[in-house]
Amino acid sequence: MKNKFTGNKINGIYTEMAVEARELNPDLPGIVEQNESIEGIEVSRITIQNEASGQQIGKLPGQYITIDAPNLITRDPELFKKVSQQISIEVMALLPNITAESTILVVGLGNRFVTPDSLGPRVTEKVYVTRHITNYMPKGSIDMTLKAVCALAPGVLGVTGVETYDIIEGLVSNLKPNAVIIIDSLASRRAARINTSIQITDTGISPGSGVGNSRADLSQKGLGVPVIAIGVPMVVFASTIAKDTIHLIADKTGLHSDEEKLIELAQQVISENMGEFIVTPKDIDSIVNDMAQIVADGINQALHGDNTATLGEILS
Amino acid sequence: MKNKFTGNKINGIYTEMAVEARELNPDLPGIVEQNESIEGIEVSRITIQNEASGQQIGKLPGQYITIDAPNLITRDPELFKKVSQQISIEVMALLPNITAESTILVVGLGNRFVTPDSLGPRVTEKVYVTRHITNYMPKGSIDMTLKAVCALAPGVLGVTGVETYDIIEGLVSNLKPNAVIIIDSLASRRAARINTSIQITDTGISPGSGVGNSRADLSQKGLGVPVIAIGVPMVVFASTIAKDTIHLIADKTGLHSDEEKLIELAQQVISENMGEFIVTPKDIDSIVNDMAQIVADGINQALHGDNTATLGEILS
Amino acid sequence: MKNKFTGNKINGIYTEMAVEARELNPDLPGIVEQNESIEGIEVSRITIQNEASGQQIGKLPGQYITIDAPNLITRDPELFKKVSQQISIEVMALLPNITAESTILVVGLGNRFVTPDSLGPRVTEKVYVTRHITNYMPKGSIDMTLKAVCALAPGVLGVTGVETYDIIEGLVSNLKPNAVIIIDSLASRRAARINTSIQITDTGISPGSGVGNSRADLSQKGLGVPVIAIGVPMVVFASTIAKDTIHLIADKTGLHSDEEKLIELAQQVISENMGEFIVTPKDIDSIVNDMAQIVADGINQALHGDNTATLGEILS
Amino acid sequence: MKNKFTGNKINGIYTEMAVEARELNPDLPGIVEQNESIEGIEVSRITIQNEASGQQIGKLPGQYITIDAPNLITRDPELFKKVSQQISIEVMALLPNITAESTILVVGLGNRFVTPDSLGPRVTEKVYVTRHITNYMPKGSIDMTLKAVCALAPGVLGVTGVETYDIIEGLVSNLKPNAVIIIDSLASRRAARINTSIQITDTGISPGSGVGNSRADLSQKGLGVPVIAIGVPMVVFASTIAKDTIHLIADKTGLHSDEEKLIELAQQVISENMGEFIVTPKDIDSIVNDMAQIVADGINQALHGDNTATLGEILS
Repeated sequence: MKNKFTGNKINGIYTEMAVEARELNPDLPGIVEQNESIEGIEVSRITIQNEASGQQIGKLPGQYITIDAPNLITRDPELFKKVSQQISIEVMALLPNITAESTILVVGLGNRFVTPDSLGPRVTEKVYVTRHITNYMPKGSIDMTLKAVCALAPGVLGVTGVETYDIIEGLVSNLKPNAVIIIDSLASRRAARINTSIQITDTGISPGSGVGNSRADLSQKGLGVPVIAIGVPMVVFASTIAKDTIHLIADKTGLHSDEEKLIELAQQVISENMGEFIVTPKDIDSIVNDMAQIVADGINQALHGDNTATLGEILS
Repeated sequence: MKNKFTGNKINGIYTEMAVEARELNPDLPGIVEQNESIEGIEVSRITIQNEASGQQIGKLPGQYITIDAPNLITRDPELFKKVSQQISIEVMALLPNITAESTILVVGLGNRFVTPDSLGPRVTEKVYVTRHITNYMPKGSIDMTLKAVCALAPGVLGVTGVETYDIIEGLVSNLKPNAVIIIDSLASRRAARINTSIQITDTGISPGSGVGNSRADLSQKGLGVPVIAIGVPMVVFASTIAKDTIHLIADKTGLHSDEEKLIELAQQVISENMGEFIVTPKDIDSIVNDMAQIVADGINQALHGDNTATLGEILS
Repeated sequence: MKNKFTGNKINGIYTEMAVEARELNPDLPGIVEQNESIEGIEVSRITIQNEASGQQIGKLPGQYITIDAPNLITRDPELFKKVSQQISIEVMALLPNITAESTILVVGLGNRFVTPDSLGPRVTEKVYVTRHITNYMPKGSIDMTLKAVCALAPGVLGVTGVETYDIIEGLVSNLKPNAVIIIDSLASRRAARINTSIQITDTGISPGSGVGNSRADLSQKGLGVPVIAIGVPMVVFASTIAKDTIHLIADKTGLHSDEEKLIELAQQVISENMGEFIVTPKDIDSIVNDMAQIVADGINQALHGDNTATLGEILS
Repeated sequence: MKNKFTGNKINGIYTEMAVEARELNPDLPGIVEQNESIEGIEVSRITIQNEASGQQIGKLPGQYITIDAPNLITRDPELFKKVSQQISIEVMALLPNITAESTILVVGLGNRFVTPDSLGPRVTEKVYVTRHITNYMPKGSIDMTLKAVCALAPGVLGVTGVETYDIIEGLVSNLKPNAVIIIDSLASRRAARINTSIQITDTGISPGSGVGNSRADLSQKGLGVPVIAIGVPMVVFASTIAKDTIHLIADKTGLHSDEEKLIELAQQVISENMGEFIVTPKDIDSIVNDMAQIVADGINQALHGDNTATLGEILS
């Protein structure tokens, strides 16, 4: 079965997070950055203003919001709620044209059977699906105006010889939703981010941002409707550990002159010996479960607003 | 979660199997029947010649092949192989225009989590998917001309709030296969059929044959490509037990004059007390597993011919 | 894979519920019955006072509480909560010697992969396990006195050649819990009970009550600790439909003189034609999910009391 | 949910494989090594002769066989079969007292839901369970003398809050098997081993070899019957990558004098930044599936000999 861990390589540095690409290129023009601190949560908003600037860091023009909450590692339920709330605020801000009667399709990318790649399907399992809810709820039990939210996790199919993109695009053609929200696992340069960061963007997921299949344009351009992508780092690449090791050791020993050469050697060493390896924390299964809950709660609040609690009682 | 157990009602008699509809209406014109005995396997071939005749028994015009092997209950591996072989013969006969380079989409309908409804998804898990096989097999390990077979089990897609039909039609539009094979569970009038019968038809599954959603035309007419439907009875309806009880008791007691009135009463009794209940054998999970293997083996042989054994070693 | 659907046969009538056995034998001495109505919930308490009386209806001496809530079919979340609360009251009343530091083992019997038999494993998935909780929660996140609750669902193992009883008894020997709570699916005589009844008893599950393996004494006598069994009807037997059909038709047609003979014929008809079939509602998967949640909530409240809500936030 | 990735630390070098511990300590007395090449498969046999020698490398006295087949990465079905056959030869050699009527318990350790830790449960799913086979096979379908093989995967038991050891020891006390075979994932120092090595030992898994719980003596000493442990490396530890990077770079740059100091810094860097991270190949799910099949085939051949093919047809 396949799983997807690709991303941009900028100057040999591996990253999928816009905020990390930005950190590596702090002086590029055409990129605006604004940061905010909200009760222990850091929110970074990066706007890439045009294609040229974006190409420099391998990102499409648009908005990239990163929510960082380092204390998520304590598993404090109150902090979980605050992060979900911030996610809902950011998602709603990116979907200004959604009304009380909109149809929203939530797509969870990833392989349910590879733990760090299972975030997407886990989120769709927890999203409150309301489209056709009257089909399976007893008469009179639903007395609210609900958006028509539906969900799809194409990757749970495993290897089927079918492009995930063909399933999604085919469904969007028939369903004609007012927006699509896609959830996916990302790779990060920093191990610490795995437990504590969420990226939200209105650029969707498209070839320009590094997805394996060059045809897979899961963005407004490719699908014809607004696409919000929510990504959560779940892995670090093995080559990243080697590079960070060298860098930090260079700091401690003063071997900076050799640093770039050593990093090249490290790349060589890793790929000769390890092919493509991914690095996850030992407790990855409870981490991915927590992050899936936080993201799903954020999506439910964004789409269902005041109906969320009641839907939870009915649907759980 | 939904599951699908619907079918035709002919004169109040519940059936999804063409051979059973025919048994109830043996004298209708425009329906040709031919039977064959092949080493302990009974093959019935029914051709419905026009829409008018078909309407009488709630079936679309086309070919309906029923394979009956009562001894399957012994779980004899040799008999399993013979039935699979017969399935492959019948499927190939219904797809005369398929070539060595065709693309075939195999769709398993049903809910993976309701045992009697899980036949479809279990079959797709066992079909040898070869489209894009070179993407995940090491270089040089594949040295055969293979059809491009791909698979989809929409019921396990984590799809909720979305019509299965929209997923399938959307995918077929993008994929443009040369044929589609759909597998589904059926209801039967006879409990004994659950362990021992398979129906194969070139009429697909369409509103004319009773699927819940009236738009869901999973046939050549609706999808634009040849559609073969393979159905295996997995349930009997509760009302069927009541009616059979009355009928057989009428036989033993001579109460025939009251039989029709009693059957009406039985309908009443069942629906008042039991809503829609389904009846399955206690060992339904090993039965559905066996039947899924038999059908998948038949499909693999039909599509992969002499390459089947090698593919089994590579893909299992 | 096996699943378990057995029970008592009293005068040919199939039942596992004590309240149903009692209904068939209303005049037996040594059996005390008391009923209570609590806000739309009916609670029946049956005490079988000695072995002799119990033998008459195939039940061991002890207490049998049946909670009936016909309106559960509306899926009203408030009623779900009331039923859970009543379950917790009854469970606590049957475990008077449990303290704030007790160890409780919760065992969910049944086959996770046969929907109506999956109640037990689904309940154990939802019970809040607190034994060793400090092993996997961050330091300082737990600041409550918790009972040591642990869980086991032996049936998810499928066919393994090992007696479920040997796994449970072996674990109880090593663990030495203060009590065991066992959850299992039952068969009922009335289809309506499937959505609406719960039986709780302090007699556990033992050969005297009809479990397949005659050695499997999952009661205080066999395990050496108090055993509470919670059973929820999930199936009706096919023979029951036939008998009920005949009975109700006899009522409408006045054919009572032949009723017993007809019932005998029905038994014959069913077993000749259908072997052992079980009958479940079409929507059995959402029913078993709802009942599992109701039972698990009841167990959590009984064992964790005021800590339940906080544990829910930490552990979900 | 927990998963288990622990092992010996010898001189700060992390390893669970005896052959790797030996490589680090080639001159210790009391350790005998013998190597064999069999058609592209390397078999290393290490015997640790006494406790004192064993303590030096953190291993119990006994036999350790390592099967290495670097070409397994090509997924050649013929090589898979040869490796399985070698596994069966080694297992049978370690169980000289097993007869045609022995009872063997196969235990698959690990968490089914963390991919690299799921080897054990996947193997038990594929082992042919024959104890009580007549309970579920139709009369007369079994006409062979079979060992009574049974299986247990405690990590999927829905066991929470309970020691895996208590389940296994409790079951062994009741079952009284003639031998136990335990399968588990290991960590290795070399990434290349993940696809290509299997370790088999008669020392079982005990505190002396590093399992988390110091009581968990899954060896002959603790369980009272012969215990064979089969381990397959599925992960490398992040600290290993850093150390290997430094070592290989030291080779290329001549920075050997600083090597030990750099390795200490690397340990520091990794643990400060990454806590406990594990490293797996991107395609870990197909690797663990392949290795599970190879090991299960080896166990089936060892235990069922000439009956293996027939059992495969009956039980698959």
